[in-house]
Amino acid sequence: MSFSTFLLDGAGRVFRHRPTFSKLVIVLAASGGGLVAYADGRTDDSKESSQVAPKKKVVVLGTGWAGTTFAKNVDTSLYDVQMISPRNYFAFTPLLPSVTCGTVEPRSIVEPIRKIIRKKNEEIKYWEAECFKIDPKSKTVYCRTDIGTNVEGHGEFPVTYDYLVIAVGARVNTFNTPGVAEHCHFLKEVEDAQKIRRSVIDCFERANLPDLDEEERRQTLHFVIVGGGPTGVEFAAELHDFITEDLAKLYPTIQDFVKITVIQHGEHILTSFDKRISSFAEEKFQRDGIELQTGFKVVKVSDKTLTIQNAMHEDSSIPYGMAVWSTGNGTHPVILDFMKQIGQEHRRVLATNEWLRVAECESVYAIGDCATIAQRKVMEDILEIFRFADKDNSGTLTVKEIQDVLGDICIRYPQVELYLKSKHMSDIVDLITASKGDIQKEGIELNIEEFKKALANVDSQVKSLPATAQIAAQQGNYLARCFNKMRDCEEEPEGPQRIKELGRHRFLPFRYKHFGQFAPLGGEQTAAQLPGDWISIGHSTQWLWYSIYASKQVSWRTRALVISDWTRRFIFGRDSSRI
Amino acid sequence: MSFSTFLLDGAGRVFRHRPTFSKLVIVLAASGGGLVAYADGRTDDSKESSQVAPKKKVVVLGTGWAGTTFAKNVDTSLYDVQMISPRNYFAFTPLLPSVTCGTVEPRSIVEPIRKIIRKKNEEIKYWEAECFKIDPKSKTVYCRTDIGTNVEGHGEFPVTYDYLVIAVGARVNTFNTPGVAEHCHFLKEVEDAQKIRRSVIDCFERANLPDLDEEERRQTLHFVIVGGGPTGVEFAAELHDFITEDLAKLYPTIQDFVKITVIQHGEHILTSFDKRISSFAEEKFQRDGIELQTGFKVVKVSDKTLTIQNAMHEDSSIPYGMAVWSTGNGTHPVILDFMKQIGQEHRRVLATNEWLRVAECESVYAIGDCATIAQRKVMEDILEIFRFADKDNSGTLTVKEIQDVLGDICIRYPQVELYLKSKHMSDIVDLITASKGDIQKEGIELNIEEFKKALANVDSQVKSLPATAQIAAQQGNYLARCFNKMRDCEEEPEGPQRIKELGRHRFLPFRYKHFGQFAPLGGEQTAAQLPGDWISIGHSTQWLWYSIYASKQVSWRTRALVISDWTRRFIFGRDSSRI
Repeated sequence: MSFSTFLLDGAGRVFRHRPTFSKLVIVLAASGGGLVAYADGRTDDSKESSQVAPKKKVVVLGTGWAGTTFAKNVDTSLYDVQMISPRNYFAFTPLLPSVTCGTVEPRSIVEPIRKIIRKKNEEIKYWEAECFKIDPKSKTVYCRTDIGTNVEGHGEFPVTYDYLVIAVGARVNTFNTPGVAEHCHFLKEVEDAQKIRRSVIDCFERANLPDLDEEERRQTLHFVIVGGGPTGVEFAAELHDFITEDLAKLYPTIQDFVKITVIQHGEHILTSFDKRISSFAEEKFQRDGIELQTGFKVVKVSDKTLTIQNAMHEDSSIPYGMAVWSTGNGTHPVILDFMKQIGQEHRRVLATNEWLRVAECESVYAIGDCATIAQRKVMEDILEIFRFADKDNSGTLTVKEIQDVLGDICIRYPQVELYLKSKHMSDIVDLITASKGDIQKEGIELNIEEFKKALANVDSQVKSLPATAQIAAQQGNYLARCFNKMRDCEEEPEGPQRIKELGRHRFLPFRYKHFGQFAPLGGEQTAAQLPGDWISIGHSTQWLWYSIYASKQVSWRTRALVISDWTRRFIFGRDSSRI
Repeated sequence: MSFSTFLLDGAGRVFRHRPTFSKLVIVLAASGGGLVAYADGRTDDSKESSQVAPKKKVVVLGTGWAGTTFAKNVDTSLYDVQMISPRNYFAFTPLLPSVTCGTVEPRSIVEPIRKIIRKKNEEIKYWEAECFKIDPKSKTVYCRTDIGTNVEGHGEFPVTYDYLVIAVGARVNTFNTPGVAEHCHFLKEVEDAQKIRRSVIDCFERANLPDLDEEERRQTLHFVIVGGGPTGVEFAAELHDFITEDLAKLYPTIQDFVKITVIQHGEHILTSFDKRISSFAEEKFQRDGIELQTGFKVVKVSDKTLTIQNAMHEDSSIPYGMAVWSTGNGTHPVILDFMKQIGQEHRRVLATNEWLRVAECESVYAIGDCATIAQRKVMEDILEIFRFADKDNSGTLTVKEIQDVLGDICIRYPQVELYLKSKHMSDIVDLITASKGDIQKEGIELNIEEFKKALANVDSQVKSLPATAQIAAQQGNYLARCFNKMRDCEEEPEGPQRIKELGRHRFLPFRYKHFGQFAPLGGEQTAAQLPGDWISIGHSTQWLWYSIYASKQVSWRTRALVISDWTRRFIFGRDSSRI
């Protein structure tokens, strides 16, 4: 299948299924050996139709890790790329907890998206607007600009696409707990971090006023963090440092009233980390006087108290001064609406296939926190896998037959490999041996039922990826590379063999490579979980954290600023002005 | 008059005039040679009455230039000082125009007031609250905290004082022009500068959207500055630099639509400066393409247009994208209310005497932009002056008699000296000679009418001081020094002889010393008007500006940050992220 046929194939499909999409114009021109197709959406009949637009339109929603990495890496000589986001900058979100207490300034972790996507010749267009509706039928996204200017009304405008890359990220999940949206702080955006910073200072200034009794001072200086995940824990640690290192000197009369509490539903904090890190963090927090309330769920938030519930469904009430809600991700309304349109209304999160494409839509991709990969289960495809492996159609599989297709199966179903690794097996033959009992390996022949039995548990290894910057960036990068080599891969597919059909998949499916994860715990101590179950905790890890976070900055400007912020903090401490 | 009698005198007066002020306790104790008095206000019957508080309570309203300089310099071993302001930081306001465009970051020009006023032993107390009522009868200020915390209600609390220093600054004066408060930006606070910065970026993002026609883009990118004073001009210059140096690269398709207009009521901009600077600025702006609309008054502002009026009362309408209102100072409501109470309701600005005390109140001082010095006119006191000089009661003044008291008169009425200087006269005798015709100097004798005639025009030199940081800081410093030497000056007054009564004034009246003024004009060019009519314009003056502004920072932290901001701007340019 050549590039042109691929494009025609896609376009033709649109024609077949969507007879209303009548304005689609296909221009075929042999220019420089390449064939191009041009599709003009119905709603976009303005300037652009008068030009000869040779490139496919890729619309990217979002300027976070996923969207930005995609835009940075996509080849703009092949695509006409447009980015749409209400945020005209990229934010280095792993440093957000540092911004809450002024260890790092907000502007040091942001970079204008226009600077990042500026390329030599071909410009990526960017619109500061929010997409409020995706219409996959007409291949159009509807956007709204919320910029307060004096020009008539709130501009709404449609943008058509050939490919859509959804990378809008997640929003806070309040689990419908009453009062959370009204009274709690969140920690998703730079603005949230700035608000938290002001709010911490506010609490200190309020508690310092002459007209309060001791109880009121205590309540005002009670900082509650709901959620013991990496963000919540890092914020608690930052806040503790801010208070002990800086605020205690400036508010000496009230420092004894300060209390920090972390409320965690599970029995431990940092459950996504190794147990050693989790225990170290819990011990350190105990030494620091940060209270951990594990096994509690917050069921209600009022302006003055949080109501928590233990496993026995007993309620108790915690008076607080400031609360930060840092638990779980929710889905944006525009994505929920899109999911409804494509028949994913029963899901909590938008699902893509292993190539990051929304399976129900030919040309819509979703990356980053807004989506999850719905990994095909082995047991769902077990018959096809059996047939695929059984080259001689004998009804049984020999070890050789299995080994011949094992590579493709492991690529298509990574859970197989993970399962083998978890059972410390080196080969699928071990798995079969284990299920069939101790017989001679070469002589094994499996029928379908035995094959099913052998693979029965591999799907237990299917786990959805956590919502981290690392994964989002890898997805953006992966998708950009797929887009860049789309033409080559039409001719020479690089993916595994198709199980159900003939031929190969165009691309290798996305595979996440874990490079490790940090958990800064305050007091210049950080825990790190590195690949291969390596654990590193302490001051040296903090310096590793400094160097990695500095090197990962998107620009020399932010790198210089972040480093100078850290230096400034060492020398002068954190600023407590209420701005 | 000794220190104790002074205090008793003051306290006694309060007793006499305010019989309700019954809780005043006077504690006399010979401790270390000093006598102390303790006054406890009626409304403050809480904790403090249980302690033996030996020091007079000084309450300072405001943390701007005047209030902060006063607090920094006042001797806390002599006074119990409390500061009240809704702003828990001091801002280096001369750099505000630089903040509007990100040349300098907001946090680089602010310093927590608690850090500034931290002294070795004696702490100055600070309450983050806004004073909403001053009651000079009960010597109480009523404060309200606006801090959004979860503690019951908005705390209102009274604070009693023995001395009150009002330094709340001015607010924007809209001259009751309709629509200004709703649609214009101001440039008084750090928050204003941050809003302007976001708004500039908003205009660019809005103008860049795909759904606008050329006219709309032009309107959105029309930046209007109302007021051609130093702030307005500096902002216009900063904005021009920001656009040409940074934004033009990032928004190449719309840069030609940008227009900056300065609307000025008078015929020239920078009228407070020398004419050479004013013309240089006008020429530079013309070269830069910044339009000057002089001789126009803004009479109405709507969300899309400004209505301006020329001297012939002809209206015309200007469509705009963003407008900054930077003209004139108004008085805070709390001050207006206070003025009503003390009988200054006919005035526009709170008036103090030449010693910065509100003449109508025994113990209220006002410094900085919130007040103006009501300089006594010579002609008002001419009879007393004559009597004062006429030591031999002859009904006529000889030259010697005049010269004997000339020093005191010049200190009490600085306009005399200014008038002589303006007429290039070295001595008052020249003035008399000029008025009496060419006679022998020694033989001059003046009667009261001739004396009146000679001094008839000196009061033309009475001018109110402009509202600058320099003056506010000098006033704060002057007042703190007066407070610190109050006891010494009771015994040995340092002021001029009293004209109407016997004895001397305790202190020398406040005299402003002008150290020069800068007008940054963009493109690394600054104009400076130095003392003695020296003018300096150009790149070298910009470097003088850099070094003076760096040296004038209140802390090493802000100094380091401001310098690193300037360096960052040179290397990386200004950031255009919308945060």
